[in-house]
Formats: sequence, structure tokens, C-alpha cells
Amino acid sequence: MSLTFEHVTLGQRVLFGTSAAAANLAAEVARLGAGRVMVIASDFGTKMARTVAADIEVALWHHDVVMHVPIETAEKARTAAAEAGIDLLVCVGGGSTTGLAKAIAMTSRLPIIAVPTTYAGSEATNVWGLTEALRKTTGVDDAVLPVTIIYDAALTLSLPVAMSVASGLNGMAHCIDSMWAPRADPINAALGAEGIRALSHGLPLITENPSGAEGREQALYGAYLAAASFASAGAGLHHKICHVLGGTFNLPHAQTHAVMLPHVTAFNTAAAPEAERRIASALGSATSLTGLATLYKTIDAPRNLRDLGFSEDHIAEAAQLILPQVPASNPRRLGMPELERLLHDALKGSTP
Amino acid sequence: MSLTFEHVTLGQRVLFGTSAAAANLAAEVARLGAGRVMVIASDFGTKMARTVAADIEVALWHHDVVMHVPIETAEKARTAAAEAGIDLLVCVGGGSTTGLAKAIAMTSRLPIIAVPTTYAGSEATNVWGLTEALRKTTGVDDAVLPVTIIYDAALTLSLPVAMSVASGLNGMAHCIDSMWAPRADPINAALGAEGIRALSHGLPLITENPSGAEGREQALYGAYLAAASFASAGAGLHHKICHVLGGTFNLPHAQTHAVMLPHVTAFNTAAAPEAERRIASALGSATSLTGLATLYKTIDAPRNLRDLGFSEDHIAEAAQLILPQVPASNPRRLGMPELERLLHDALKGSTP
Repeated sequence: MSLTFEHVTLGQRVLFGTSAAAANLAAEVARLGAGRVMVIASDFGTKMARTVAADIEVALWHHDVVMHVPIETAEKARTAAAEAGIDLLVCVGGGSTTGLAKAIAMTSRLPIIAVPTTYAGSEATNVWGLTEALRKTTGVDDAVLPVTIIYDAALTLSLPVAMSVASGLNGMAHCIDSMWAPRADPINAALGAEGIRALSHGLPLITENPSGAEGREQALYGAYLAAASFASAGAGLHHKICHVLGGTFNLPHAQTHAVMLPHVTAFNTAAAPEAERRIASALGSATSLTGLATLYKTIDAPRNLRDLGFSEDHIAEAAQLILPQVPASNPRRLGMPELERLLHDALKGSTP
Repeated sequence: MSLTFEHVTLGQRVLFGTSAAAANLAAEVARLGAGRVMVIASDFGTKMARTVAADIEVALWHHDVVMHVPIETAEKARTAAAEAGIDLLVCVGGGSTTGLAKAIAMTSRLPIIAVPTTYAGSEATNVWGLTEALRKTTGVDDAVLPVTIIYDAALTLSLPVAMSVASGLNGMAHCIDSMWAPRADPINAALGAEGIRALSHGLPLITENPSGAEGREQALYGAYLAAASFASAGAGLHHKICHVLGGTFNLPHAQTHAVMLPHVTAFNTAAAPEAERRIASALGSATSLTGLATLYKTIDAPRNLRDLGFSEDHIAEAAQLILPQVPASNPRRLGMPELERLLHDALKGSTP
């Protein structure tokens, strides 16, 4: 088969070390020669951010972080940065905190150092999002890509196990979906496979020993790879389905991903031997499905949409909404009957 | 084991497509909005470069390409670019051609589009090299990293099979060495493993059918990954050994790599189970050694240093020169006895 692809690698420095965030941040601020640093952290995340920023001089603390980055919140932060003569942004927190730093970088072109404390993954993408009058706009701009990411698994120890697992499986879904997403290419697939390996290794360790470093490290590392491969490959069938289920039927995000993943994987790998080989190998299993089944059992992952509020009556409408969004890149054609069958299996939680 | 690393991802766009170089180059020149393009190609590579540049307007052709980029050659090219008001450099060729484009970019900060026609790999690194008074100086500067690489396997069809195989095994050595080089990290290892997979798939296809596209594509793709993982991980034990053998004993570069690789792999994997797992899996084999042995047999790779001009008498001196260069990151300690043993085995071509 002919090899044809376009792959954009986003240039970033990744510093990974448990309990090393403060030291790594100080070194990185010095390396960048920054003199006026603005640290962004939500009220909730302030205590953690103070520890991370313990070894740097902070010109401005900013705690006004709101989910989905409302434009008013962004404008206030932009003004604050300009007035304080800021030359470097540091964000410590989850997706909303990173999102606010990106909103400032969009207009100011200031560099960002991101210190993620969740598996949201925004730190590894050049995508920004802003909300105006309840409408979310997103766009792509290399200026919002953090120049450096500092990962410290100790900062994720307070993530509850259930949330870590659900969020980790969302990352796993990004990795698997990158095998057949619109901009899928072998580099994304290799990074995605490495993410699958790390997450399938880390998540059981977290459930077994939530305060241990190794599981947290592997899951955080896997979440980074999930974001990198997703940013490059785009949203595949799995994400299109989950987007509709979450948006229209209000199902919980991470759990919906967890339930759908084995069903979409079973459907697509039947027509994608190369993806099947990569996923199975990354899971250390004979097939992708036995690998996922073993993992789901070990970490007690959600298995059916019924428990999440979905019902038989929703299937036809959901399939109608999903159908026009199925990416042309999907390895296996699917029409209404196949989509309804897929949703039906996920509803019941039958073994794919 | 604790996960601690620093990984720098170099931002680049990679366009990969057989017989698509001309179209991809035209699209990329347009995307970058360049108006005055300088195309660099050796005399030997001019015909190929004219085909690649068929769909763009060329303000200046430059054919004065010399191996190892002598400073005088660089200065002449820099002056030519400045006088012609060039705003984009395009290099079509091997390592020396890419090297000259980098020499211009060093001082002018002009962007480069690289169209490689060999497996040299310079296009995927931010390393420049210049030769002054017979001394080669190298350095690192992000300004010399090509913004875009255009890979077209059709341009590599004229590489003789023996050279493709030797150069491909040099790439394979970069991939394997990245598992234990000084800046080894799991991201390099994942990219290196993907390179091993591609090269071990492509090289036998090239020997079987030198004019087929698939083998050339896989090898070229693997060579890119080899360069990317090597640029990030640095030179490991294998490259330190080959550097001495090539530099002091004048052994042929690529063949020396081919002979040494299984011996270094055998020595190190005995103490590096994670690397062993990755290499074996990428070779689709039970162990790294059986995988390499099968590959070497299929492509009839060189197996002993004696045929390359090395002899028993050289071993002690070579080991003396290599010893101080063994990276501290090497997974297994080796002193003089181990080094001499390794060289002795490679000399005879005994099965590792």
C-alpha cells in the first residue's frame, strides 16, 4: 500500500519528573530569560500553584479562571498581563487554566509554560477556545502552543481514582481514534500506540495503588501522547459519536468514551489490520478486544450506555445526527443500520 | 521505575508522497508566500532538482555543493542568496546539499524546504556543520531546521541497492541506539521503534524489487524516524564505537554500522529489558537478535569487520580510544575486556 501523508510536528519542550515541577519551572524561566512572570491558577488550584512557583519570582498572580474561557474573562486577563508588563505566562491547572493562558497568548504572542494537573491535554495542542454569548469558538494558532510543558505526576495525586480512570480512558480513546481519524498517519499511530501502552500500564496501577507514583506517571505520560496524536490526527469516528451523545443527550463525557471505545474499536479494526496490529501490540495482547476487555475488567470501567442515561428511544435520533459526521477516512463504511447496531450494543453493554 | 526525562520535539511539517515532490513543493512555496526562491542542488543532482522544481518559479539556482560544507562554499552561497534577495531556500539532494542550505540559514535566518534524495537524515535535525581548514565544526541552531520536509520515494529509486541497504542499516542503528543514548526517553524510543519497523519492512523489499515503490517508501520513512530519534537522543554506544572505527581505522561508514549493530544490541539488551521488548516487537520477532539475524540474512548484510579492513592488531588501540567515550547512560557497564571482546566478535563475524 502506498504511503502518503502530511504530518505536522508541533515543536515543544517536555520536562517530565515527579516532584520536580518547581525546580523544572525555575530552570525553564531562567532559560527563557523571562523577567516578568504571570502565573495563572484557579482559586481551587492556587495552593498547588504556589508550591510549583516557589522558586521563581512572580510579577502577577491571576486567579480569575472560568470554564470554557468566556471572552470577558479573557479580556480581563489580557489587560492585566499588558498592564503588568508580563513577558512570560505560566499556567498551573487543568484545561480551563491552560485555555486562559492561550487566550492571552493569542493576542499578546507571549510564550507559555504549561504545568498540567489533569489529563486534559490542552497543553500539547495549538488549539484555542473562547466562549462568547454562550457560543464556543475554537481556532488554531501556533502562538498559543506552550513552548514548554512541565509534567509532574505528584500534582495529579489528588485526582480521584474514578476520575483518573475515566479521563485516562478518554485519552486511550484519543490514541485509538488517531489510527483512523481524518489526518491519521503512521507517526500519529506510533505516538498513539505508545500512549495506549502507557495508559494500559498506568491505569491499573492507579486503581491498585492510588498514591503510588508509577501509575500516575504512566497515565500522565499517556495523556500527553493522547493529546499529541489527537491534535495531529483530528477526531475520528469514536469522537464524533461521543460528541453527539454528550452534546445532544447530555451523557457524561468521560464515561461515554469509556463505554463506546471497545465497540468502535471492534467495528473498525475488522477492516483495519494495521491498526489492529498496533493496538493489540500496545496492549500487550493477542487482539485489541481481548486487551481492552482485560483492562476494563481490571479497572472496572463503565460498560453500558444505559447506566449513563441513554435509552432505546434515543438510538434512531443519535444515529441520524452521527451519520453525516462520520469521517471519510473511516476504514469501514457505516450507514444507519451499522450505527444503530453499534449504539444498541453499547446501550446494552454486550461484549463486542 | 520512575519516569524522568526531557524531550525536545522539533516543529516541522512532513509531506510524504511518491512522485508528488513537485506538486508538494509548489503547494508549500505558495503556503509560505515566498517570492524569491533559491534552489540548491549539486551538479549531479541538478536533473532531479529541475523536475522537483518544475512547478515553482526559481529566482536563483545554486549548484556549488561540496562535501562537509567548506566555509568558502558556504560564504559564496550566503552572498549569492543575499544579492538575489532570496526569501526561501529549497535544497534537493543528500546531506551535503541540505548542509549548504543550513549554512545559509544560520546567518540569514531564511526558511528551508528540504527535499531529501538519500537517507542522510540531516533534514530532520537542527544541527549544522562547517569545515574550515580541514576541521569540521558542528553546532545546534533551531534556525537551520527545515520548516518543511518533502519526501518522495521516487527520488530514491536511483540509489543502488547495496547503498540503500547499508544506509538503511545505518538508520536502523540510529533507531536502536536511541534506546540507550545519553538523552534517551520513551518518546525517542517509540519513534525509534517505528523506524525499526519501517526499515525492517522496507529493506528486504528493496533487495527483492529495487524499482518497487513500497520498499523505498518504508525505508525513506524509516530513515526520517532514525534521524528524528537520533537528533533527540544523541549518540549511544554503537555510534561511539563506529565513530572511532571510521575515523581512526578508516573503515567504511555504513558497512561498519551494519556489522557492529547486532553485537552492540546483544551486549546492551542483556541489561535493558524494556529496549529489548521494543526492538523485538518492532522487528516482529521473538528477540531482537533473531529479528536482526533474519533481516541480515534476507538482505545479505555485511557481517564481519575483517572484510572491511579491520584486524586483530587494531583491537587494543580501538578499545582504548572508545573506552572514554562510552556514554554514562549505557545500560550495561563495559571496560576494556568487554570492549575488546565485542570488537573481536565483530572482527570474526561470530553470531552474537
